[in-house]
Amino acid sequence: MHFDRNALENFDSRYRAALINSVSGYKPANLVGTANASGQSNLAVMSSVVHLGSHPPLLALVVRPGGDERHTLANLLASGEYTINHINRAIYRQAHQTAARYPAEQSEFAACGLTEQWLDGFSAPFVAEATVQIGMQLRQHMPLEINATHLVIGEIVALTLPDAALRSDGSLDLASADTVALSGLDEYLQASRLARLSYAKPDQPLREIEE
Amino acid sequence: MHFDRNALENFDSRYRAALINSVSGYKPANLVGTANASGQSNLAVMSSVVHLGSHPPLLALVVRPGGDERHTLANLLASGEYTINHINRAIYRQAHQTAARYPAEQSEFAACGLTEQWLDGFSAPFVAEATVQIGMQLRQHMPLEINATHLVIGEIVALTLPDAALRSDGSLDLASADTVALSGLDEYLQASRLARLSYAKPDQPLREIEE
Repeated sequence: MHFDRNALENFDSRYRAALINSVSGYKPANLVGTANASGQSNLAVMSSVVHLGSHPPLLALVVRPGGDERHTLANLLASGEYTINHINRAIYRQAHQTAARYPAEQSEFAACGLTEQWLDGFSAPFVAEATVQIGMQLRQHMPLEINATHLVIGEIVALTLPDAALRSDGSLDLASADTVALSGLDEYLQASRLARLSYAKPDQPLREIEE
Repeated sequence: MHFDRNALENFDSRYRAALINSVSGYKPANLVGTANASGQSNLAVMSSVVHLGSHPPLLALVVRPGGDERHTLANLLASGEYTINHINRAIYRQAHQTAARYPAEQSEFAACGLTEQWLDGFSAPFVAEATVQIGMQLRQHMPLEINATHLVIGEIVALTLPDAALRSDGSLDLASADTVALSGLDEYLQASRLARLSYAKPDQPLREIEE
């Protein structure tokens, strides 16, 4: 099946949204936690976290200004801090429910059955049920004029991981941490390893890394 | 296990790279195809494609200037076109091998056993072995000064999909398309569905979407 630009333009908007949201491939499934100046918490499911670099450790996040993500953006710009929490198999339904349009004064934590966890000296709440929790400090905010989204660049300043998922080389076994993936707007998936492959060099065959 | 900023700063650089590359969660596994003005092709495995919006249909890509990605960046800036091809179970080893540092005059297609596929009037090659192929036109290029990476924003102008993977609502069944996910620097994974969940509303229970 082949679609050209004209066909894409003429799709019904919901059909196009479902399609375009799924063509990039699997997406990371995270909950982004923030709080406003009064300590009122907010939690939003987001699939747009992308690795930017490891030294300094930077992650970027694409935020859409509509709906719940508006509160997330306002909070993190005001406080300069936010959390990224992996969605796992035990909480993906609660995580999806955070996308409902709750009023600003209602926290998605309580409304969706998730628990706030606060770290001393850090103004944004973590998700207690998440075993991979990342504390972020805002480094740069770039509005993207092309479609009125926002690129938020932050530095990892705190990182909590399950011991059993951390391999000896520093990589994380996401499947053993029960982290899930997202596809499109609504599909949650579990993953299993095909292989870890050695660093590629021009004239050497790849070998499998067993750990 | 908990790491603060100081601990992250003091890790060995390879350990830190393995860790920070895996903390964002699952990543999409794509091959980005480009060509230079003489038609010399280049192919690079990339895990940084992120959905930016569906109307217009925009995807962003984080490109690192080192190694093979340098040729990708130079080519797409010069030609204004590139392709994004899903890595599937049949080709993930060949895809990983494209990360080796081949000289500019050697195409990763031939070196890694993948086949160029050209679309009339489009200057970048697709990967014939990929069943999900996306033709992109460059819309915006933003160097990110914070760590000398580049944000490349493009519009989808051509899209080829396997019929059987396209659902009636427009979403793509990535698992049935055999698309794989990446974790960290070297781990390839297959995925299987936990559930598709209905659009979340404040006072309604979620239901599963069966298709």
